[in-house]
Amino acid sequence: MKKIVAAIVGYGNIGKYALQALDAAPDFEIAGVVRRNGAQGCPAELSAYKVVSEIEDLGHVDVALLCTPTRSVEEYAKKMLAKGINTVDSFDIHSKIVDLRRSLDASAKETGAVSIISAGWDPGSDSVVRTLLQAIAPKGITYTNFGPGMSMGHTVAVKAIEGVKAALSMTIPTGTGIHRRMVYVELEEGYELATVAAAVKADPYFVNDETHVIEVPCVDDVIDMGHGVNMTRKGVSGVTQNQLFEFNMRINNPALTAQVLVCVARATMRQKPGCYTMIEIPMVDLLPGDREEWIAHLV
Amino acid sequence: MKKIVAAIVGYGNIGKYALQALDAAPDFEIAGVVRRNGAQGCPAELSAYKVVSEIEDLGHVDVALLCTPTRSVEEYAKKMLAKGINTVDSFDIHSKIVDLRRSLDASAKETGAVSIISAGWDPGSDSVVRTLLQAIAPKGITYTNFGPGMSMGHTVAVKAIEGVKAALSMTIPTGTGIHRRMVYVELEEGYELATVAAAVKADPYFVNDETHVIEVPCVDDVIDMGHGVNMTRKGVSGVTQNQLFEFNMRINNPALTAQVLVCVARATMRQKPGCYTMIEIPMVDLLPGDREEWIAHLV
Repeated sequence: MKKIVAAIVGYGNIGKYALQALDAAPDFEIAGVVRRNGAQGCPAELSAYKVVSEIEDLGHVDVALLCTPTRSVEEYAKKMLAKGINTVDSFDIHSKIVDLRRSLDASAKETGAVSIISAGWDPGSDSVVRTLLQAIAPKGITYTNFGPGMSMGHTVAVKAIEGVKAALSMTIPTGTGIHRRMVYVELEEGYELATVAAAVKADPYFVNDETHVIEVPCVDDVIDMGHGVNMTRKGVSGVTQNQLFEFNMRINNPALTAQVLVCVARATMRQKPGCYTMIEIPMVDLLPGDREEWIAHLV
Repeated sequence: MKKIVAAIVGYGNIGKYALQALDAAPDFEIAGVVRRNGAQGCPAELSAYKVVSEIEDLGHVDVALLCTPTRSVEEYAKKMLAKGINTVDSFDIHSKIVDLRRSLDASAKETGAVSIISAGWDPGSDSVVRTLLQAIAPKGITYTNFGPGMSMGHTVAVKAIEGVKAALSMTIPTGTGIHRRMVYVELEEGYELATVAAAVKADPYFVNDETHVIEVPCVDDVIDMGHGVNMTRKGVSGVTQNQLFEFNMRINNPALTAQVLVCVARATMRQKPGCYTMIEIPMVDLLPGDREEWIAHLV
């Protein structure tokens, strides 16, 4: 079996888990890791891999797993697609997915490459379930309830507030798509909790949600990377009311995102040139090996 | 917008709900219903529709929803595909799906038609979720727990036993894919419950499951068409253990099956000639209208 040659671009949290997931997959070969600083200051666990600052230095690569910050995804993807390298990412700004897809679709088609975007768990695997439920109960409401789990975006927003030394913003679901924010902070010396809490609650990230700000001696002691989803839909199939659906997950956040990236990296090898979201690709293309065997086993 | 012209083939329980679901869909036109006896002895609710015994009498048809018994699916599908009419069905004998797909794939390609098979809720929408979970946590075990709900196959098996006047076999999940069978029977005069119960428990359908047989005065009084599923997977993403997933449904059984048939009937219009299961088609193809709008809304 010819293996799929993959490179990891960006070696933060997701990149680390992506390396583990590629290594565990039976059908991938790891070309190496692309980091801004190349091999300089490289973590010990990368000693067995090529670490470079430019992807050309890895030789032939079929697909690049973009584990960069979301805002850099488009730039990196265009660079890779221009070289004819497939790309996958977990771009997570829901309101900009359509634009990114249009932009990368044009780039991909120019070189005959494939890009699968917004492939994490939400957007990503959750999107597939939401689409399926929309189809099989066309009228009704789907609520996606997140957490309990750490919100990266909200945590960053709190860290930017004056007097905050370290922070953690937890997303707590209270049902029907409404969330409470539990914010844990370490304060700089000379700052009052009341002042910092007021600033957090006035921030655009928090202003519409019930928010509690709590001082802790050490934020690092309360961080875990578990997350969760509870998705519900109550809807109508044909004219039959009250069809009830629920999807739940309790997962390690970066580990799941990285595994999804590996699955869609595989799926890029099976699509026609262009850019896709996960709801546009057949689920069986996420799996290695023979299609008929999976049909016999899973359908 | 040009509507998709659909015919219903077979007018039992699923056929009735399929008519409702087609009627509720914005993008379908109902050509009519094909019944073995044509318009003869036709139920009152069909008075507004063409009812025929041969599909030719409906004029142009894009897609036929096969609402026949599972064992007749292949025969009807081949007949329709030979005429260049797309077909969908909810063929539910899991062990024979691969063979049916091969057989109909050849037929469909001969005339440039499309067939989507085993499209109900299990096999069907459950298969899509099972495949997604297999992909995003590649190592682990998925348990599909059915019910509480009526099992058609088991009920028919009980009815075939001597002394049974009417029967209902309920599937009760006891976890990890193991099921209890609760069998409700009305007996013919002169038969003993103990004898009938022993015959039920010795039947191949029941011999491996915990089975309880209970006499009731009127089986019809205890039948409802609600059903349920609880699917769980505990697995590994990359090398991260204990990723937990759960999918639950509480649904009207024939209504959901019929709605899935309507969704895949739509999807047949968007595939290349051949035969597919639901895990081989993009989820967005199940939905009417513009792909980009769904991406903006659901991804």
